Amino acid sequence: MTAPLQNDLFLRALLRQPTPRTPLWMMRQAGRYLPEYRATRAKAGSFLKLCMNPELACEVTLQPLDRYRLDAAILFSDILTVPHAMNVGLEFEAGEGPKIARPVRTAADIDKLPVPDPEGELRYVMDAVRLIRRELRGRVPLIGFAGSPWTVGTYMVEGGGSKNFQHIKGMLYGAPRELHRLLDVITRATLAYLNAQVAAGAQAVMVFDTWGGALTPADYREFSLRYMKRIVDGVTRESEGRRVPVILFTKGGGQWLADMADTGCDALGVDWTTDLADARRAVQDRVALQGNLDPSALYAPPAEIRAQVARVLESYGKGHGHVFNLGHGIHPDVPPEHALAMVEAVHELSPQYHG
Amino acid sequence: MTAPLQNDLFLRALLRQPTPRTPLWMMRQAGRYLPEYRATRAKAGSFLKLCMNPELACEVTLQPLDRYRLDAAILFSDILTVPHAMNVGLEFEAGEGPKIARPVRTAADIDKLPVPDPEGELRYVMDAVRLIRRELRGRVPLIGFAGSPWTVGTYMVEGGGSKNFQHIKGMLYGAPRELHRLLDVITRATLAYLNAQVAAGAQAVMVFDTWGGALTPADYREFSLRYMKRIVDGVTRESEGRRVPVILFTKGGGQWLADMADTGCDALGVDWTTDLADARRAVQDRVALQGNLDPSALYAPPAEIRAQVARVLESYGKGHGHVFNLGHGIHPDVPPEHALAMVEAVHELSPQYHG
Repeated sequence: MTAPLQNDLFLRALLRQPTPRTPLWMMRQAGRYLPEYRATRAKAGSFLKLCMNPELACEVTLQPLDRYRLDAAILFSDILTVPHAMNVGLEFEAGEGPKIARPVRTAADIDKLPVPDPEGELRYVMDAVRLIRRELRGRVPLIGFAGSPWTVGTYMVEGGGSKNFQHIKGMLYGAPRELHRLLDVITRATLAYLNAQVAAGAQAVMVFDTWGGALTPADYREFSLRYMKRIVDGVTRESEGRRVPVILFTKGGGQWLADMADTGCDALGVDWTTDLADARRAVQDRVALQGNLDPSALYAPPAEIRAQVARVLESYGKGHGHVFNLGHGIHPDVPPEHALAMVEAVHELSPQYHG
Repeated sequence: MTAPLQNDLFLRALLRQPTPRTPLWMMRQAGRYLPEYRATRAKAGSFLKLCMNPELACEVTLQPLDRYRLDAAILFSDILTVPHAMNVGLEFEAGEGPKIARPVRTAADIDKLPVPDPEGELRYVMDAVRLIRRELRGRVPLIGFAGSPWTVGTYMVEGGGSKNFQHIKGMLYGAPRELHRLLDVITRATLAYLNAQVAAGAQAVMVFDTWGGALTPADYREFSLRYMKRIVDGVTRESEGRRVPVILFTKGGGQWLADMADTGCDALGVDWTTDLADARRAVQDRVALQGNLDPSALYAPPAEIRAQVARVLESYGKGHGHVFNLGHGIHPDVPPEHALAMVEAVHELSPQYHG
């Protein structure tokens, strides 16, 4: 039924198996920096409608693959689909970021939260996964994803993006049991959601912990990492006769990489504030590493982008287990030809680190 | 002429000398969370006018000392006074943050930048320092400060606050020599500025590197730390017969503390994402440490604030060389009585770690 996978470099690198070169993809590769993405989004009418339309979500997922020699596709979606299905009233206001109409701040609010059925309220995501797999025709593997419970929780409690995390930190310090109950229900919802993505065809899964870096080390372990470990423990690790690798990424988590590797995940995303040589030493090659070009390096002229790619490859050094990526999502105002310079440089420069 | 210093705990702790308890102050202690500050600011008419009026700047500098048992005063001012005096056209728009009318982006822009005379265009700052010292009458020492050259440079190049640092990173990766020339002139201006503050009466100086954490490790060393070291090397280290300690603070710099200690500074500010026990191990007690309660912990009820203060004191552990502080500036929406709970807890709980 499913076309055989033609390029499995990404999956092999995540399992630290030999590859002839370093595979790569870009966080937010289906995004606003691409004119074809902006056209499809305009057609959809809004960001949320784009997420909820499997045909259009599939279309934008495939766009960067038609432009660049990338080694993975990532489901076009958003980490807030889960709270959306938990009835908190999500909206994306133009230029304003996400807004949640009914923030979750009390025990009664938490009691009301359902664990959504991934093939019910979230069926549009699973339909997108199925459609993308069909349309990919085995070109490259498809990555499924979710936000970390802590990160999703920050939006649910704050009612949107936040700088100081007033409400959730008030809860963390003042009512930690309630916060644990909230994180528990988000974790159960997220596990069901990720497992349904794998059942629908996702071949690797990534957990995005965008705001774990806002915590103290002790709070990170208690309120973010603990729940990511539950996801690592509970997510389906084999599908279609292959291992499904799990990648954890905490932005600003460079000091906690060894703790993250202890969860039993297969790979860690690393942002650009940590040198990959240091990261590799910290995890002692127990997991693969994914990263970590500064996304703002793509503002530089192409020749300099190539030099920066070389620096990242050199920092990881010889050996397998490196997936090249940006250290965070590509910025919306980066010229597409600058991303091309990065992609081509990885293809040209990485074989010398393998073989 | 000057009243003798009655409380030198802060200065002694910065030099890792014995103290009977842990001294403390709060970053942004003269700030919007205090109603008396808001009243004075309203009287001044704007934030910039408040900075530029020595009498009112003195008034707000002293306000937190009248409310709380703090061990240091910090000059009320802003890190952007230096670029303001370099004629880039600084304005603070209400609720918008700083805006710079003439961003510095070309070699010609850089050529035009003067090194301001601290007793000329910046005399209002030195007058504030002199007035505050007189009005303090030796109660506690006065901290002078400046932004790090990299951090000040981000505002000058971007034209205000930034998320992705598009322009300065474009320069860093695409025209690094120009950026070095810019950082050089900012460094010379900053050194003259800090030395004039010491001459006017500042008894310790702190360099705020708010945006160093946005850099890769290699870029941090080349574009931020290198210039902070020039400041450490060039700043007056003795005044009024006492050592003038220098504190460096890079927000998000937890991975680079050992490199920072190598500059020869006396103390490092540490944000809340690094455990002080780890920080102490990293710097091997070569420098004092200042920090690091999560500023958002002050959203918790007072009893929990006390528990969090205990956790920070315990993480530093026994021995001298700790100045208690928040890990970043106090948030404007924190109730003043929550800050009081923190201050009192440090007084009550810290003596057991000394003596």
